[in-house]
Amino acid sequence: MSPTSAIAALQQALKCLPGVGPKSAQRMAFHLLERDQDGAREILVSLAHALKTVKHCSRCNNFSVTELCNICASSHRNPGLLCVLETPADLESVEQAGIYKGMYFVLMGHLSPLDGIGPDELSIRQLIQLLESGQINEIILATNLTVEGEATADYIGDIARKRDVKVTRLARGLPMGGELEYMDQGTLSQAFEGRREY
Amino acid sequence: MSPTSAIAALQQALKCLPGVGPKSAQRMAFHLLERDQDGAREILVSLAHALKTVKHCSRCNNFSVTELCNICASSHRNPGLLCVLETPADLESVEQAGIYKGMYFVLMGHLSPLDGIGPDELSIRQLIQLLESGQINEIILATNLTVEGEATADYIGDIARKRDVKVTRLARGLPMGGELEYMDQGTLSQAFEGRREY
Repeated sequence: MSPTSAIAALQQALKCLPGVGPKSAQRMAFHLLERDQDGAREILVSLAHALKTVKHCSRCNNFSVTELCNICASSHRNPGLLCVLETPADLESVEQAGIYKGMYFVLMGHLSPLDGIGPDELSIRQLIQLLESGQINEIILATNLTVEGEATADYIGDIARKRDVKVTRLARGLPMGGELEYMDQGTLSQAFEGRREY
Repeated sequence: MSPTSAIAALQQALKCLPGVGPKSAQRMAFHLLERDQDGAREILVSLAHALKTVKHCSRCNNFSVTELCNICASSHRNPGLLCVLETPADLESVEQAGIYKGMYFVLMGHLSPLDGIGPDELSIRQLIQLLESGQINEIILATNLTVEGEATADYIGDIARKRDVKVTRLARGLPMGGELEYMDQGTLSQAFEGRREY
């Protein structure tokens, strides 16, 4: 392999990262080889380790190295509440807010037929088993408020209602620090519709 | 290692990449583990291979897997012309433009005393040896037109002049497609100063 093709192969590989195009990949490759070989070795070790050990929790579908993840194995959480999220990043945001003490189910994506992502890709069967186990009293739909997130919430809401599980969705309205002047019409109309006594 | 810490270690490692902060690192880690394990394996293979094989060319200091890189080993280039650049990315830009057929010297950075980058870190000794070999008629300073790039050009220009090598610097002026309305003062004043008969 020539020098250029060894670096070209690395650049090509780095382009699989989200948000990384040819120029960024080139910059990253040069940086790793010239300025930060220790960092490069850390990426090698941690990536290999994560690829080998990280699987999915058999209950909530989140990343886990054990059969059950820490949250599902915890006895300090309300087992009757199930919050359905799109990604592990969403779960971490909710956990960091520290206001939710129920269980989770992570879809690892949203319905997107055009990209070939249907119910099977989102482990919906695993979710149905959980809903049919009789442990869940309420399912909180916490998918994103995007077109795909809403469609996914609709789909899962129907499934849960058929199994007599109470279905809720996160509140819509103005975000903290939001200024009316800069809000979009959709948010404003939902804030008016959902207004509460004060 | 817990699931979170295996992923956290990967995120931490990815943050060494230029332009990657905590949020991007999280997104990349989840993407690699969930959506693109093949891509992750390609990064592993190509990064390990590049770290093992890529060294520096003993003549031009550019990346190379052989003692001499392809350009330095080529007999089709003018050995009396030496273009001094900051990075391999700069070299690739010049090569892609296809207008230069001399040799190169890649500094792998620029002088930056505050970051601890002095002449030794830029392989200046290797450059001096090359200048003293008597093969070089003209040295073209092609460092960036930034403060650090200019200081580096000044420093190397002095070294070359002392060894009776002709020193040139890339032309300054308006870039192709440039509109005067949007040019900064520095560029405009250099364009006026360097005006040529037409």
